[in-house]
Amino acid sequence: MDRILALCTFVGAAVALLFAVITATRVLKFPEGTDKMKKISQSIRSGANAYLKRQYIIVSVFFAVMFVVLLAMAFLGLLTFYVPFAFITGGFFSALSGFVGMKIATAANARTANACREGLNKGLRVAFSAGSVMGFTVVGLGLFDIALWFSLLKFVFGETPETITSAMLTFGMGASSMALFARVGGGIFTKAADVGADLVGKVEAGIPEDDPRNPAVIADNVGDNVGDVAGMGADLYESYVGSVISACALGVVAFGTLNAMAVPMLIAAIGIVCSVLGTFLVRTKENATQKDLLGSLSRGTNFSAILIAIIAFPLVWFLLGEENIGLYVAILSGLVAGVLIGQATEYFTSDSYNPTKKLASKSETGSATIIIGGLGLGMMSTALPIVIIAVCILIAYFAAGDNNGLYGIALAAVGMLSTLGITLATDAYGPVADNAGGIAEMSGLEPEVRHRTDALDALGNTTAATGKGFAIGSAALTALALMASYIDKVKEVFRGIGKTNEEIQEVLKFDITDPTVLVGLFIGACLPFVFAALTMESVGKAAQSVVKEVRRQFHEIAGLMEGNADPDYAKCVSLCTKASLKEMVLPTVVAIVVPVVSGLILGFKGVVGLLGGATVSGFLLAIFMSNSGGAWDNAKKHIEGGNFGGKGSEQHKGAVVGDTVGDPFKDTSGPAINILIKLLSMVSIVFAALVVKYNLAQYLL
Amino acid sequence: MDRILALCTFVGAAVALLFAVITATRVLKFPEGTDKMKKISQSIRSGANAYLKRQYIIVSVFFAVMFVVLLAMAFLGLLTFYVPFAFITGGFFSALSGFVGMKIATAANARTANACREGLNKGLRVAFSAGSVMGFTVVGLGLFDIALWFSLLKFVFGETPETITSAMLTFGMGASSMALFARVGGGIFTKAADVGADLVGKVEAGIPEDDPRNPAVIADNVGDNVGDVAGMGADLYESYVGSVISACALGVVAFGTLNAMAVPMLIAAIGIVCSVLGTFLVRTKENATQKDLLGSLSRGTNFSAILIAIIAFPLVWFLLGEENIGLYVAILSGLVAGVLIGQATEYFTSDSYNPTKKLASKSETGSATIIIGGLGLGMMSTALPIVIIAVCILIAYFAAGDNNGLYGIALAAVGMLSTLGITLATDAYGPVADNAGGIAEMSGLEPEVRHRTDALDALGNTTAATGKGFAIGSAALTALALMASYIDKVKEVFRGIGKTNEEIQEVLKFDITDPTVLVGLFIGACLPFVFAALTMESVGKAAQSVVKEVRRQFHEIAGLMEGNADPDYAKCVSLCTKASLKEMVLPTVVAIVVPVVSGLILGFKGVVGLLGGATVSGFLLAIFMSNSGGAWDNAKKHIEGGNFGGKGSEQHKGAVVGDTVGDPFKDTSGPAINILIKLLSMVSIVFAALVVKYNLAQYLL
Repeated sequence: MDRILALCTFVGAAVALLFAVITATRVLKFPEGTDKMKKISQSIRSGANAYLKRQYIIVSVFFAVMFVVLLAMAFLGLLTFYVPFAFITGGFFSALSGFVGMKIATAANARTANACREGLNKGLRVAFSAGSVMGFTVVGLGLFDIALWFSLLKFVFGETPETITSAMLTFGMGASSMALFARVGGGIFTKAADVGADLVGKVEAGIPEDDPRNPAVIADNVGDNVGDVAGMGADLYESYVGSVISACALGVVAFGTLNAMAVPMLIAAIGIVCSVLGTFLVRTKENATQKDLLGSLSRGTNFSAILIAIIAFPLVWFLLGEENIGLYVAILSGLVAGVLIGQATEYFTSDSYNPTKKLASKSETGSATIIIGGLGLGMMSTALPIVIIAVCILIAYFAAGDNNGLYGIALAAVGMLSTLGITLATDAYGPVADNAGGIAEMSGLEPEVRHRTDALDALGNTTAATGKGFAIGSAALTALALMASYIDKVKEVFRGIGKTNEEIQEVLKFDITDPTVLVGLFIGACLPFVFAALTMESVGKAAQSVVKEVRRQFHEIAGLMEGNADPDYAKCVSLCTKASLKEMVLPTVVAIVVPVVSGLILGFKGVVGLLGGATVSGFLLAIFMSNSGGAWDNAKKHIEGGNFGGKGSEQHKGAVVGDTVGDPFKDTSGPAINILIKLLSMVSIVFAALVVKYNLAQYLL
Repeated sequence: MDRILALCTFVGAAVALLFAVITATRVLKFPEGTDKMKKISQSIRSGANAYLKRQYIIVSVFFAVMFVVLLAMAFLGLLTFYVPFAFITGGFFSALSGFVGMKIATAANARTANACREGLNKGLRVAFSAGSVMGFTVVGLGLFDIALWFSLLKFVFGETPETITSAMLTFGMGASSMALFARVGGGIFTKAADVGADLVGKVEAGIPEDDPRNPAVIADNVGDNVGDVAGMGADLYESYVGSVISACALGVVAFGTLNAMAVPMLIAAIGIVCSVLGTFLVRTKENATQKDLLGSLSRGTNFSAILIAIIAFPLVWFLLGEENIGLYVAILSGLVAGVLIGQATEYFTSDSYNPTKKLASKSETGSATIIIGGLGLGMMSTALPIVIIAVCILIAYFAAGDNNGLYGIALAAVGMLSTLGITLATDAYGPVADNAGGIAEMSGLEPEVRHRTDALDALGNTTAATGKGFAIGSAALTALALMASYIDKVKEVFRGIGKTNEEIQEVLKFDITDPTVLVGLFIGACLPFVFAALTMESVGKAAQSVVKEVRRQFHEIAGLMEGNADPDYAKCVSLCTKASLKEMVLPTVVAIVVPVVSGLILGFKGVVGLLGGATVSGFLLAIFMSNSGGAWDNAKKHIEGGNFGGKGSEQHKGAVVGDTVGDPFKDTSGPAINILIKLLSMVSIVFAALVVKYNLAQYLL
């Protein structure tokens, strides 16, 4: 059984990676277009490469330090020796996912623009293929890492399932740390460039978006790649791996058998195959409407989801027996909840629906009212996802049965992310289309091309909204699963120091009226707020430096506005690089230090409170910020589409302010919070032995 | 003992009310100034009266419906018959507190302006006296209501302490409902008028603040009275009463004796006497600087606080014995925490400190960056109060001892609010000074007068920040105490249906990993977000109607801008009245319906989760919104003070946008959340028997 499991998982990973390689080869066969297009694409590519290179250097230092810390802890008997190495591989594969995604995206942008010269369908194929490469690389590498460690620990070291899952949780921590760096750093870069380009270019100088005269325009396009592609790749690698390993860990605790580990691993493997099949359904006719395009993408994802739903049934039945078929319901509830949260997100942020239309109308009384309206919209939009996730939790928990309830919640997260290969493809193609539009604009292609890339881009906004729904929903469920894993870990530590099961049961209570749990709850709930503040502050700082530089270039470079001189693009790129790398460190350090310090003071009960508080408030804040930002963006686009005064009107100016505020909301702080809430749990798990053995609470309270 | 307690409490209430009456008489003796001043003051007064009258009519309908519901529940044996009546009195006294405060404030505004013609000290005396009337009316009526029900139930009906505190909690619910109506309705009114007046008057037409040509200027001044005075009066009545009765209830459970009830009641009574003494220290020399003025107010409040800290020691010793002297530490920790949260608030929102100065500097890159900066500042500012309240909770809980821990937390809230008489006086005088400034401007008094009222007003902003710190801090502690009372209430219901103590102990567990608790936590945490969204949306709607009306008047009334024709002030007032009263109903209904419905579905465990989630996220959101709003306001004032371009510059325009966004943040949504989190608990307590007996969870889960 165990060998079959390892084999199946490796095969799943291989299918994903093979498909990614084939697709990448196909994408690279498309021509890049005119020399000008090649040149622009090359600038973007080299900017993005330079950023990633420097990011990886800084991150390496962090990983080296953490490796030493973990190694020291292993020598002190607080960890197994697998942990430091697992930590490193998680970080490595997470970074690799982002890197591959960015490589293909920067290779596909000009190709997409060029394909759009021939037709919309061809453009969609190229962009979507590039997204697929990223999607399948993420799931492929994720599953490969899982299979690798499983095989290593099982067959080479002959470890117990408990030790295996325990080590796996550590590579989750590596992946999460890397993801946070990538998301925060990339998010700051992209939004600083975007805000800087917009504020001076669009608002002050009155030149259009992506105008080649704007010195920050290349930085803006680089940002799409390092933030929305490399950042997202690392992020979703982390989500995917996190959901699978937390389910494995809880499954082992609940059932004590490998079969319970097999369920999430095989669901993931099957999900890959179903997703590959789904991608073949994504194509559209020429002159397709927005609706046709969306339909084409939905066809692919829905097909994959239904296929998984069908196959999961016999899988659960066979592996866990008829009496545990409730766990299938748990998987299903996650799958459905993901779709529903995505739809709720779309309802609140797409200008096809009332909320965003009404928001756009608020521009008529100026920027203040559209800001108030957007903040209100975002806050209101938390209600529906909360209800959806609440119902999902209840169904998953009770369908799984009281003893396996938390395993059920973890499986719901796996169900939600099982179609990640294809949903991520539909998500990641957005930035490619966005870049393609930029290249079309900058290289002066026919308006028709830009029109087509805009259609692809607009669709990208919708699919990004759906993708965010999945990311947020799965983050909440996974964080809860990891919280449960933390409690199991604490149990294990207590057993290790010779406590009896009864003693442990007596201690392992996390009553909400217990003052340490309560205080933990307060501190945990505060963390996403602090984190959002830090990242927004960073974007603000970085953006201000870009604004000053762009203003300087407009002012000092003679003939720039007339198109007789070239701006110094590289200066803006290197400015963004420096600023974002400097600013990305503090938030990550906060995320790692606070749970450990809180634990050393409040003890493990405080940590559980902290994790609960962070999950709940992080979920709310992430939805609030993502949806406010998304709605502002689309309200602006709605106005640009000729409503409420159209482009250049006072209303449009107000909407641009809204969009600018929304930029760090939706692309920096919001998504980073998803990673934060899981990283907090993983850090707590890794440092559990330390906290349980040495905390102030046991002496004082 | 019980008679002495009743007597002391009545005496405390009488001292407060007598002092209020004497002070009011003294205020009314001051002359109102010129005929023009009288006329303007009269317009404000009649607008405010008209609003309150209509508000009370709508609220009466709500109270009548609730009365019938509660009566029906009493007939069904789900409540005692005291409950419906207690509910009504709580609402009545809360409304009365707001009403009296508004009466004196609208009487004192012209008098303050007039006194400022003679000198700053005199102006301060009049405004502060008016604030004192409000402060002592609130605490006097609060204590009177407590004493009244205590005496009635104890001496007339001979009830047990449990039944007494149980009924008292219900008048808390009445007070909270009324407070929420007053805060939300008044908050919408004042901000709709303010935003409307600013957006069209200041930004579009370019006329100064409080210019008599602005049709919304009277509405704006009326708003200060119905929102910042009447709303705040009702609000703090609720906080004060809530903290005392929740401490009484927990004290009875912890000690089973009247002595434990006596502690909070007597601390409140002594607090009143100390506060009265403190008011005599508030006076300042002529040509006082802002620092002198602040010093004068601080002298009064600090004196009162220290006096209470001294007297509370023998009181606790005598009533609860040497072994429980830890409860004194709990009271002290609350007193100190209140001061510290106030100082943290001031640090983040006053332009004497770096955060707000830096925020003002962000206006240099436009309104978007100042908005992002303000949101970040508000989110970051949650960290310090969270740490303060966390330490306060831990100290209060553990100083009180494990068995009395929650009683300790409740006493901390009482300690925090014990100086409410004088802190509210320093808080409520702000709107009076604000109004006085408006009257000075509109009636064309010498610039020197306006200069003096501005000095008073600026000080009012600082004291308001401190006041908000107390309001938020005490709300969190009281909400936790009420959550504990809810659990006690559930226990009582179980005992009533014949469960043994062991069975009850088995059931009364609120582990954070229990799915119903967890789901409750999610839903509860979401409520403040939804609530903030609803209220902001309402302000937006109401403001838009004001904007349109003001634009219409500027456009249609010939000679208005030249000062040859009068605007139609009354139209704006009635517009605000209508809009705010219409909008105030839904948020309150949500606050009452959601905990009951959640309870009927999830059971009492879900309710406890809900209350915990709402308290934590409400605390964070209230601080975030209040501080963002306060900082934007003061950043704007900082620029108006001649920094970063000064009045009329582009930077100033950006700051005005920030201030406008901050208006509903700090004066509508933020403060209303404080009431919300307590109302949720009180509603849950009243409906506890219903929820425990009839819930879906017990059948399904």
